[in-house]
Amino acid sequence: MIKGIGASSGIAIAKAYKLVMPDLTVTQNTVEDVTAEIKKFEDCMAETAKQLEAIKEAASKNLSAEEAAVFDAHALVLQDPELKTQVLDKINNEKLCAEAALDAVANSFIAMFEMMDDDYFRERAADIKDVSRRLLANLLGKPLPNPALIDEEVVIIADDLTPSDTAQLNKNLVRGFATNIGGRTSHSAIMARSLEIPAVVACKTITEEVKDGDLIVLDGIEGTVMINPDEATVKEYETKRAEFVAYKEELKKLVNEKTVTTDGHHVELVANIGSAKDLVGVKENGGEGVGLFRTEFLYMESAELPTEEQQFEVYKEVLEGMEGKPVVVRTLDIGGDKEIEAIDLPKEMNPFLGVRAIRLCFQREDIFRTQLRALLRASVYGDLRIMFPMIATLQEFRKAKGILMEEKEKLIAEGVKVSDTLQVGIMIEIPAAAVLAHKFAKEVDFFSVGTNDLVQYTFAADRMSSGVSYLYQPFNPSILNLLKHVIDSAHAEGKWAGMCGEMAGEAIAAPLLLGLGLDEFSMSATSILAQRKLIKSVSKADMEALVEKALDCATSEEVIELVKSTVKM
Amino acid sequence: MIKGIGASSGIAIAKAYKLVMPDLTVTQNTVEDVTAEIKKFEDCMAETAKQLEAIKEAASKNLSAEEAAVFDAHALVLQDPELKTQVLDKINNEKLCAEAALDAVANSFIAMFEMMDDDYFRERAADIKDVSRRLLANLLGKPLPNPALIDEEVVIIADDLTPSDTAQLNKNLVRGFATNIGGRTSHSAIMARSLEIPAVVACKTITEEVKDGDLIVLDGIEGTVMINPDEATVKEYETKRAEFVAYKEELKKLVNEKTVTTDGHHVELVANIGSAKDLVGVKENGGEGVGLFRTEFLYMESAELPTEEQQFEVYKEVLEGMEGKPVVVRTLDIGGDKEIEAIDLPKEMNPFLGVRAIRLCFQREDIFRTQLRALLRASVYGDLRIMFPMIATLQEFRKAKGILMEEKEKLIAEGVKVSDTLQVGIMIEIPAAAVLAHKFAKEVDFFSVGTNDLVQYTFAADRMSSGVSYLYQPFNPSILNLLKHVIDSAHAEGKWAGMCGEMAGEAIAAPLLLGLGLDEFSMSATSILAQRKLIKSVSKADMEALVEKALDCATSEEVIELVKSTVKM
Repeated sequence: MIKGIGASSGIAIAKAYKLVMPDLTVTQNTVEDVTAEIKKFEDCMAETAKQLEAIKEAASKNLSAEEAAVFDAHALVLQDPELKTQVLDKINNEKLCAEAALDAVANSFIAMFEMMDDDYFRERAADIKDVSRRLLANLLGKPLPNPALIDEEVVIIADDLTPSDTAQLNKNLVRGFATNIGGRTSHSAIMARSLEIPAVVACKTITEEVKDGDLIVLDGIEGTVMINPDEATVKEYETKRAEFVAYKEELKKLVNEKTVTTDGHHVELVANIGSAKDLVGVKENGGEGVGLFRTEFLYMESAELPTEEQQFEVYKEVLEGMEGKPVVVRTLDIGGDKEIEAIDLPKEMNPFLGVRAIRLCFQREDIFRTQLRALLRASVYGDLRIMFPMIATLQEFRKAKGILMEEKEKLIAEGVKVSDTLQVGIMIEIPAAAVLAHKFAKEVDFFSVGTNDLVQYTFAADRMSSGVSYLYQPFNPSILNLLKHVIDSAHAEGKWAGMCGEMAGEAIAAPLLLGLGLDEFSMSATSILAQRKLIKSVSKADMEALVEKALDCATSEEVIELVKSTVKM
Repeated sequence: MIKGIGASSGIAIAKAYKLVMPDLTVTQNTVEDVTAEIKKFEDCMAETAKQLEAIKEAASKNLSAEEAAVFDAHALVLQDPELKTQVLDKINNEKLCAEAALDAVANSFIAMFEMMDDDYFRERAADIKDVSRRLLANLLGKPLPNPALIDEEVVIIADDLTPSDTAQLNKNLVRGFATNIGGRTSHSAIMARSLEIPAVVACKTITEEVKDGDLIVLDGIEGTVMINPDEATVKEYETKRAEFVAYKEELKKLVNEKTVTTDGHHVELVANIGSAKDLVGVKENGGEGVGLFRTEFLYMESAELPTEEQQFEVYKEVLEGMEGKPVVVRTLDIGGDKEIEAIDLPKEMNPFLGVRAIRLCFQREDIFRTQLRALLRASVYGDLRIMFPMIATLQEFRKAKGILMEEKEKLIAEGVKVSDTLQVGIMIEIPAAAVLAHKFAKEVDFFSVGTNDLVQYTFAADRMSSGVSYLYQPFNPSILNLLKHVIDSAHAEGKWAGMCGEMAGEAIAAPLLLGLGLDEFSMSATSILAQRKLIKSVSKADMEALVEKALDCATSEEVIELVKSTVKM
């Protein structure tokens, strides 16, 4: 049994599928029989071409056309006569073994393309890397995993899952993930929760301990993975899986209920979404609104920036879809770990501390104004609230709001209708803004705390870096003290305070956030019902007493212990 | 006249020396006359060899032996027959022009060496890059600048100055710097202040506007650079320079005075140092102790880690040199932007938010324990105070202190004497620690605020990144509120609070820090006397009234305006 971090709830029982790169180290051997070596290489080329064809065919069934297109590019690389000629030359002239010849030629091609200051060529370098790796793997007799070919239920075992790995997966057949690295907020964890697939991350050495085809029992609740457990254990977990499914069914009954504590205090449970498609999930899970509409995906869909008209249509669709319920739209938050093709971001030494979100929007006011116009035009179709990300100083808020007001005036002058009740608020995700919340509260309409970034910056610890993951402490009293100041400051000025970071959806956070007086909890739609059940089971007065003690704790462990010993979850 | 940021005070008047790389883009031309092209390349090789010889000779006069050694490595690269043969082959076989042949061969060599997982080869790649760039520059008729050959007084004009650029400069002949990029805390700015050379950074386009040999008048106080000004202006600045020198003389009279406000409040002005050599400057400038001994330099001097004995000798020398005055030693703070050869740091996406300082010491307890033993042994030679950097949580402090106490017990068991009055404190440079200062104050002996990092993390803005330099706001009320909490928390528990970031040495900060009750101001030795003069001219009561207003400001601009309108500087 391996202990990791439970990243997405549920139980998976299926065969292991290892998504692991074999070691493709090449020794620089020379050969005597050049003709045999050339034949070996040519055979391998033919075999690889067949393999690619098979993958492409399978992929076209399992994946979208866009996802499968990469294999066409790979076939083209393989057909490139330049690659083949150079390898054969090297075998002929230097008597190198085929592996070493291929390695040298491929590396020089890759280096050449990577050095070019052009995205097209850099993508070609990636294609050459993929194809030469596949050729090399075949030459070495260590074939690569082909996730696109998966045709039975599996639990994926990997070092980590990148977006490009997941693009090749048939999500209907993947029952769970277990990865060596990652944390609760890494890409693979977030994806697993959004797909409602159980996942365990940070398993350290799981790729070494599991063989392909091993029976895996994965418990995303406890964060454990069992390899080839005995029959009794499998039975036990089949029962547990059934119970989990039953619990999920019970939650479904809460879909249309309000979230009210035992002493009658009402809070709003709303959802984080990335596109209009996500509204189905919001409704299925009883979301009372949208607390965070991440607009980045609009910008990631194409190599061109979305036009005002395209954006307007999307915002209108979301606002109409929510039928008058509040929709908080965050303006463009790229940079940091998020890049988009249509905007050329400078490479920075510490991208998380660099030109991202509102900072980038100030550098590219054209992009910002287009988005604001689209939002303003859509504002009449529902209860729109505009939220600026990464605000650190009041001047930044004033500047952003100033630009918004300019565009509003322009639209009105053009005869376009704009909502009169539009709210304008900020993310609280930078410590400077949290500390100065009492000043911000006088000028904004609302706060929404982004805990992922707020915790990252407050502890000066990259949430993606495993070496400092022990410092991702949302329950540390330092964070609770900041939250108290933020929420109290909002209320003192008659404003509302929400939260749209991961913390808002965590069971252990709910009692604390209730006690602190948080008005709005925004989370993955799939977490809403469980949070609702929990909040309905406690009283606000008790949670206020709990928070008073929590604020006076010295460490995160003390706070967690305190909550667990006070509230039944 | 160009406006930049004054990074080091004083006036420089001298000829411009541009330290700028020419554009070495190569067009892939072929040639008809292969023999002529080969001769051209061979002539260039010979010329370059002569050039390198001349530079080496000049460098051996201007620079230390270690700094000059790089040119020996370059001569060796030039003599490598492999490089020459491959270029000649390319000219012969592909009829490439010499520039294109060299470029292709050099790039393949560099790519090959850079790909190797070995520091020795990666350094060779850097040497090949330097030499091939010089060859290419000569082939293209665009010779490189040779800063090692500077033999008259100059003002350096550069895009930025890296540590390796400055290694080649004869500091006695450099009268000032002006750079396109950088901020008050960038490497070049800090170096300029430590050498007491006037400097202006962030001049944006100065390398385009200045020609070699232009007369430059640089004002490091106002942050301006004049190019070929008229005679009257030069006269004016010669007078200003004389006044600055006179002001410096007046400050010298304060060397042995205490730093006491007009209403009798005493504060300590101490120095930041990097080695025992710096003690001369501390004494010349009237430092009352050492507020920050950066021990990193000990680890940077060699490819091996310093032994306990080597460290003991250095700590003893500093403690004895300070003759019983307090010496705050910060334990190893590498990672982030600081790397050392002897420790293999993992590459991180956001090194400032990664495994650095105490976090690294917990991963490498062997290194940490060696340093602590050396410090404990030295503790009997003066008033030693040990300070842990990058503490974010109480557990981290408890763990670090626990390790220190273990080593102390061991030493005592071995019969080694250890001071009984040793203080143990922490840097406050992470927002989490500042917010929770009231809990930390119960367990530490002192705080020292590291403003460079505290500001960087509080605003989530890399202080090295020019795109977000507007967010380096040490005077923002958010920072002042955090400082108030830190200082009040220390005093509530009877502990002292100091500051060892850049802010402690800034004129505009002194009134605020005095009003907040800061006990110890640690700064570059060269800033001490000016701060002493300023602090002696004000009363603490007035500064407390000032701070009360400053804490209630909404923006950094308001605070700066308030201080400037209240205190004469």
